[in-house]
Amino acid sequence: MENNVGSQTNYIKDEVEAPTNITIKGILGLLIGSISENEGEGNKREVISLGIGDPTAHSCFHTTAAAKEAVVESLLLDKFNGYSPTVGLPTARKAIASYLSSDLAYDLSPEDVYVTAGCTQAIEIAVSILSRHNSNILLPRPGFPIYALCAAFRNVEVRYYDLVPEKSWQVNLKAIEDLADQNTIGIVVINPGNPCGNVYSYEHLEKIAETAKRLKTVIIADEVYGHLAFGEAPFISMGVFSSIAPVLTLGSLSKRWLIPGWRLGWFVINDPNCIFKSPKIIERIKKYCDICGGPATFIQAAVPTIIENTKESFFRNTLKMLKKNSDICYEKILEIPCINCPYKSQGSMVVMVKLNAALLQDISDDIDFCFKLAKEESVILLPGRTAVGLKNWLRITFAVESSFLEEGLRRLKSFCLRHSKLKIMN
Amino acid sequence: MENNVGSQTNYIKDEVEAPTNITIKGILGLLIGSISENEGEGNKREVISLGIGDPTAHSCFHTTAAAKEAVVESLLLDKFNGYSPTVGLPTARKAIASYLSSDLAYDLSPEDVYVTAGCTQAIEIAVSILSRHNSNILLPRPGFPIYALCAAFRNVEVRYYDLVPEKSWQVNLKAIEDLADQNTIGIVVINPGNPCGNVYSYEHLEKIAETAKRLKTVIIADEVYGHLAFGEAPFISMGVFSSIAPVLTLGSLSKRWLIPGWRLGWFVINDPNCIFKSPKIIERIKKYCDICGGPATFIQAAVPTIIENTKESFFRNTLKMLKKNSDICYEKILEIPCINCPYKSQGSMVVMVKLNAALLQDISDDIDFCFKLAKEESVILLPGRTAVGLKNWLRITFAVESSFLEEGLRRLKSFCLRHSKLKIMN
Repeated sequence: MENNVGSQTNYIKDEVEAPTNITIKGILGLLIGSISENEGEGNKREVISLGIGDPTAHSCFHTTAAAKEAVVESLLLDKFNGYSPTVGLPTARKAIASYLSSDLAYDLSPEDVYVTAGCTQAIEIAVSILSRHNSNILLPRPGFPIYALCAAFRNVEVRYYDLVPEKSWQVNLKAIEDLADQNTIGIVVINPGNPCGNVYSYEHLEKIAETAKRLKTVIIADEVYGHLAFGEAPFISMGVFSSIAPVLTLGSLSKRWLIPGWRLGWFVINDPNCIFKSPKIIERIKKYCDICGGPATFIQAAVPTIIENTKESFFRNTLKMLKKNSDICYEKILEIPCINCPYKSQGSMVVMVKLNAALLQDISDDIDFCFKLAKEESVILLPGRTAVGLKNWLRITFAVESSFLEEGLRRLKSFCLRHSKLKIMN
Repeated sequence: MENNVGSQTNYIKDEVEAPTNITIKGILGLLIGSISENEGEGNKREVISLGIGDPTAHSCFHTTAAAKEAVVESLLLDKFNGYSPTVGLPTARKAIASYLSSDLAYDLSPEDVYVTAGCTQAIEIAVSILSRHNSNILLPRPGFPIYALCAAFRNVEVRYYDLVPEKSWQVNLKAIEDLADQNTIGIVVINPGNPCGNVYSYEHLEKIAETAKRLKTVIIADEVYGHLAFGEAPFISMGVFSSIAPVLTLGSLSKRWLIPGWRLGWFVINDPNCIFKSPKIIERIKKYCDICGGPATFIQAAVPTIIENTKESFFRNTLKMLKKNSDICYEKILEIPCINCPYKSQGSMVVMVKLNAALLQDISDDIDFCFKLAKEESVILLPGRTAVGLKNWLRITFAVESSFLEEGLRRLKSFCLRHSKLKIMN
């Protein structure tokens, strides 16, 4: 212990750095905090949160009874209270492989599927197993902040490529080619898009795959909103193009089944040509799963029944509600002078709108806008700059009761008119 | 993209290294594999696995109905299908803080509790948030392999200190002092002990805390088997000594409630003097939780009811069964010439026994022993060398039906006699 004498301390306390990234939940906390500070001032209106993609607070977005019954049944069997293999229960892996294969021209093997604690853990696994010394990862801007946070914890450099609002939020392929180098470990593509509501065409996805092929890198396809496409473009899985470039597909039951809190996700290797897949990679992923925790065994055991017993009408009804709300958003925002929506959301549960702060009297930017909106109207939208990396944009989640959304947009309009430099005549 | 021309490839395929560590589940897989290879040879006996600490396969070790009812109720409420805060649901944090405080002289705050996907994720969080450049961690030998695997993924050097079988598997404190230096991020102490079944005294735990204080480092107290003490020594939480040295307490409902598959664990900061705790540390832990996944919200929501409604008689019954089985193990092993048990397990669900391979004809070591035992007798024990870092020891899990344990030990004895160099006269 010769090194431990004197004032030397081993505690990390004084040298620790938390990543500076803020997550969506982090910003939400600050915004909600600013409302409650204000409550003494007689501002007791119901809070309208259009902040986070968790629709379960609204009864119209409750999950199907079939899913809950499957879980109760598996719990009460007393057969699934023990450990599952850390890569996932074989029946769950098989059911997920079969579910995802219906989007593909070939069949995934259950061995390609790793069951994770929600899509969050699938993201963490992807970034961690790909990370190496001096590596970088390409992320979409706007995008989903957890990727950058994972990268920060794993010392992976983040390079942002832009999504282009005027082109239906398509990927700027040229930017990807410019950013990538021999240390690029992957390109993250989120489709259907969070936070843009984009649903990419077959042709665009194919071009992305060809770009990845040229760059000899992997696509991390975030399809947590898979099948939640309610516009004209159908959802196409990136896995369709996995013979062009290896695709790591990340997803979960969370969004389509409206059960984000059940923490049932997957990390899937879509790589029929084994360009990426190798025994060493598989070994590394399996070992990583050993330290992960993973989802509850009895929920995993229910997955085959959940998938099998959920009626098409449940999915149709969700899509109908989301489409209606996307339309409401788009139309109501047309009436608000300082906000503009370049692209009507066609998928996921979110949309991005552009703020023209120059038209407002006393609002400096999107962050200022969101805090004042929260304080004055008890409405929560997320500022693009902190939430998704795009200054003077706002992220709106519309997976709420329609009447709730309409009330939120009414307050948003009234807020904008009150702060507008333009004098309204009527 | 100037760097991407030619034969340069970005895939990690050819340079990836999986950590060489093997986990208990990994070895188990190999042993079970060796049995099934043998099945064609007429060896169709029931497999007796005394390998993994998952007692749920045995109906005497099923959880209490109260726990299942609490989960079903919380699931069916439709209130807990959404996201929880990533640090855990406030009601779960509060219930865990109160549960753990009953072992302490002071009250933990719910803010000190982070809810995790089983104790595995709590281990992962502890190692990851403490890790820094060039750091090392002190692990017990024999111990629990997940620590070393986490350390390998986070580039933390592992240094093993010995537990001393002749001294009731106490910690070799001198070894700890010799191994630690200014880059030591923590000392892992597992009590009740896995795999030794040790239950440390107040005095010994206090000495460990004083050692950590002198070394200015943190104790990672793995209490996943907390309260599973059935010998003379009562379970004492390391948190009792947290005013001497900061203690990170890791635990879960898994073992005491017999629900390892529910994945409900905790990472708790026991540091009343804020020697370790600081706003930066808290921020780092919270951000780490953001990328973790965590346990299902509806299971978290059930935690207060699970803790409150579980009767003492359930716990008493579990302890009674474990004590009975620990006694059976100890007594039956006395009858086996080449195996010796220096310490009768007083806690957890496991015991270590020493193999004297010199007394056997054709068995080279513990690994050879376990593979031949699996093949010839369909009995699974874990070889100490690969499972817990101790050559020529065997790890036996006894949380099974007593008759099943007795049959396993009968076959073990018969195997040893068959391979013994000593000729038995009767």
